[in-house]
Amino acid sequence: MLEHRHAVELRHAYRLMNHGPTVLVSAAHAGVRNLMAAAWAMPLDFAPPKVAVVIDKSTFTRGLVEASGRFALNLPCADQADMAYAVGNVHGGPEGLADKFGHFGIGSFEGQTPGLPLVAGCVGWLECRLLPEPQVQETYDLFLGEVVAAQADARVFSAGHWHFDGHPGLRTLHHVAGGQFLLPADAVQARLPA
Amino acid sequence: MLEHRHAVELRHAYRLMNHGPTVLVSAAHAGVRNLMAAAWAMPLDFAPPKVAVVIDKSTFTRGLVEASGRFALNLPCADQADMAYAVGNVHGGPEGLADKFGHFGIGSFEGQTPGLPLVAGCVGWLECRLLPEPQVQETYDLFLGEVVAAQADARVFSAGHWHFDGHPGLRTLHHVAGGQFLLPADAVQARLPA
Repeated sequence: MLEHRHAVELRHAYRLMNHGPTVLVSAAHAGVRNLMAAAWAMPLDFAPPKVAVVIDKSTFTRGLVEASGRFALNLPCADQADMAYAVGNVHGGPEGLADKFGHFGIGSFEGQTPGLPLVAGCVGWLECRLLPEPQVQETYDLFLGEVVAAQADARVFSAGHWHFDGHPGLRTLHHVAGGQFLLPADAVQARLPA
Repeated sequence: MLEHRHAVELRHAYRLMNHGPTVLVSAAHAGVRNLMAAAWAMPLDFAPPKVAVVIDKSTFTRGLVEASGRFALNLPCADQADMAYAVGNVHGGPEGLADKFGHFGIGSFEGQTPGLPLVAGCVGWLECRLLPEPQVQETYDLFLGEVVAAQADARVFSAGHWHFDGHPGLRTLHHVAGGQFLLPADAVQARLPA
């Protein structure tokens, strides 16, 4: 599905996450890569675009983020619900799966950040540079990043807007709990009072 | 609609926001109250439940949060899309609307936090105690809070799960941009590999 990828202008990068999708956090360092699921992620600023994501101390991905200073937020879609749930439920690293990508048959590709694995089949990708804030990282497991590049699947995101019509399997996932995800359907256009 | 409100166990409070809804931030201090819209909000911890929300320096609500040390995250629903968009597009306070509640005819009620206005007609409410982090508040406009009480509309949230079937107007709002909100529809249950 890589042929549908297109660059998202940085001024529109926040729009990828504005509606609250669950993300997959991917990172790599010294030839080791991993990915994990995170429902707790959000935009933090428009320009330059920034994001915030909670990465628990128990995760192997966290060490890769801290060591490399880079991470990606990948937006999985409905067709990937089982995969997203699976990578969120098993540990990576020496005490877990040495390579979740390989184990689960998850493809990856590189964006603008050398060595940073982006998850194939997702519908949005944000490559981030860690903004080190050791105190909030340690106290709240909260990681901040500046988005340095963004891409999306043009079939469902273009010109700064999502349009899932006709592509139910490409809808973003919104985790409730225990592998139950809500899916966005119709949109409503609010009107300002006269 | 107040008769449908029920307390949400604190261990389930994060479930109200796990799927990424847009929220209304309300606060009050010294007899002055305000509310604003925020798409950038997320859970931050399970127990005790914590949340993170971006509150811009230009907002009047921010001063009320800092002065009172309290804020509420209210989850507006589809039937309130126009209201949610409106309160997010006009300023409150001395240079704006003196009372957005009154101006827009928005009802309010009190939960467990004396004086903290909760927005009537919403489908979820989280009363929060500010966790002061001056450095991230100043640098990133990022505010952290501990959830001290939570409620939800029992018609669409109970036993820790959302169930919007039969209540399309009570679905949570997920802002894309410019008053366009995505609405959750069907749910998918992911399965772990055997």
